[in-house]
Amino acid sequence: MTNPTLTTLLNHRSIRKFTTKKLTTAEITTLVDAAQHTPTSTFSQQYSIISVTDPQKLAALGDITGHHWLEKSGHFFLFLADQYRNSQLVTATPATIANLHSTDKFLAGIFDASIAVEAMVVAGESLGLGSTIMGSILNDVPRLIDLFHLPELTFPVFGLAVGHPAETPERKPRMPQELMHFTNDYQPLTADNATLAAYNRVITDYYQARGSHQRTETFTHHIATELARDPQQRAKLNQALEYQGFLQHH
Amino acid sequence: MTNPTLTTLLNHRSIRKFTTKKLTTAEITTLVDAAQHTPTSTFSQQYSIISVTDPQKLAALGDITGHHWLEKSGHFFLFLADQYRNSQLVTATPATIANLHSTDKFLAGIFDASIAVEAMVVAGESLGLGSTIMGSILNDVPRLIDLFHLPELTFPVFGLAVGHPAETPERKPRMPQELMHFTNDYQPLTADNATLAAYNRVITDYYQARGSHQRTETFTHHIATELARDPQQRAKLNQALEYQGFLQHH
Repeated sequence: MTNPTLTTLLNHRSIRKFTTKKLTTAEITTLVDAAQHTPTSTFSQQYSIISVTDPQKLAALGDITGHHWLEKSGHFFLFLADQYRNSQLVTATPATIANLHSTDKFLAGIFDASIAVEAMVVAGESLGLGSTIMGSILNDVPRLIDLFHLPELTFPVFGLAVGHPAETPERKPRMPQELMHFTNDYQPLTADNATLAAYNRVITDYYQARGSHQRTETFTHHIATELARDPQQRAKLNQALEYQGFLQHH
Repeated sequence: MTNPTLTTLLNHRSIRKFTTKKLTTAEITTLVDAAQHTPTSTFSQQYSIISVTDPQKLAALGDITGHHWLEKSGHFFLFLADQYRNSQLVTATPATIANLHSTDKFLAGIFDASIAVEAMVVAGESLGLGSTIMGSILNDVPRLIDLFHLPELTFPVFGLAVGHPAETPERKPRMPQELMHFTNDYQPLTADNATLAAYNRVITDYYQARGSHQRTETFTHHIATELARDPQQRAKLNQALEYQGFLQHH
C-alpha cells in the first residue's frame, strides 16, 4: 500500500540542520495554506501563526528553547491557540465569556494549532523541506507573551523551524503497533512484555548506529530520563494559562 | 506549487456519509503506521489508539456525540493522550510522579494525539478514504472512561470516523491568511476590517450554495452561535482531567 503522500508521511524525520537558503514567499504562503485546510474544531479557526523574521526575536527564541540552531532555519513559524480573534467578533455576554475562558475552548485551540502544524510539516516535506516542531518554546511562556505581544485568550503552542535539509538522519523506530493500538478496550502493558523488550533492543541499536549523539539507551531508559527531569521549569504553565485567561472555570 | 501531497492537503473535506464497505486490515495498519511516524514530543510516544468495532460501544459513541452516523463508518478510531504506558515503564519517584501529573505532560499527550490524528486523516485521503475528526466525544468523558476502561493518566482526545466517501461536499472556505498569519507580532483585528467583511460574504455564499443544511450565515454569526452555546455540557472537563490524574499541580 503506497503512494507519494504515504511515502512522505512514513519517511518523516525531524531536521535541525539547514542550508542557508531561505524559504520563498510562495513556499511560506503554500505552507500556511496547507495548515489552514486542516479540520478545525466547530469550524472556529481558533489558532494563529506568527512568522518570526526579526533576528533579535529569533535569538530570544534560541535562548528560551536552548536550541540556537533554529536561528539558522529557512523560516520560523510560531503557532498559537487563539480564541482572542473570535472574542473580537462577538458581543460579550455572560455565556460567551464563560465559554471563551473554558477548558473546552482552550483545548479546541490547542487541537487546531496541533493539527495545523502537522499539515505544515507534511506539506513542507512534500516540497523537499525539513522541519522540527519545537515544544521547547513552552520553557518561558511569559517571555513569549511579551515578545510577540500575545493578548489574552491566546497561547503559544509550538515553534516550527523549517528549511532546506543539510542532514539526512536515520528514521527513528516507533514502538510496535500492538503496544499502542488496541481494540475496544485499553490494554495496559503486561509485566513481562516480550514485544517491549524487542523494541528496547531496536532502540539500543538505533542509538548505537546513528552517527551523532551515540549512546546506549533503551526506550525504557529514555522515558525514565525524561520523567526524572526537574519539572520546575514547566511548573508555571498553569499560571501562564490562567494569566492568558484559560482554565478559569475550575 | 503543486504535488500529490499538497493536492491531498488542500482538498480536505470532512466526510460524514460512507458506503457500507469496511476498511481492510491492511488499510487500518497503514493508517496507524502513518499516525505513528509523526513527530512526538520528547520522543515519548505518549498517545494510544483504540479501534472501536463493538456495535454496542459504537452505539454508545453515537449517543455521546449525538452523531449516530459514526456507527456506519468504515472504521472508528479513538485517540487518547496516554502517559499511563510510560508510567508503567519507570520506577515511581517523587520527581517522576510530579512530572507525569503535570500540565506539561498532559499537553504533551494532547499534542502527540492531535498531530497523529491529522497524519491519519491525510493518509486516509491519499488512499481515497474520507474521515471526520470528532471532538464531540468530549461530551461525556466519564462514560468513555468506563466504556473503554481508561486508566489514570490517559484521556480521550478525538474520535476519527473513517470510510469510503458516499458524499462529495464543497470545500469550506478558510479565512484569508492576513487575518491569521502575522509577522513578528500578534495583530488584533481592527474594528472596521474589510478583509473580514469580504470573508463573511464568502461564508454566506458557501452556506447558500451547498446542497444540504442551507442557511444564511457569516463567519461572525457562526462564531457568535458557537460561543452562545451553554458551556455546561463541557463544564466537567476539568473534573475529568483531575480524575484521570492531570492538572494536579496547580
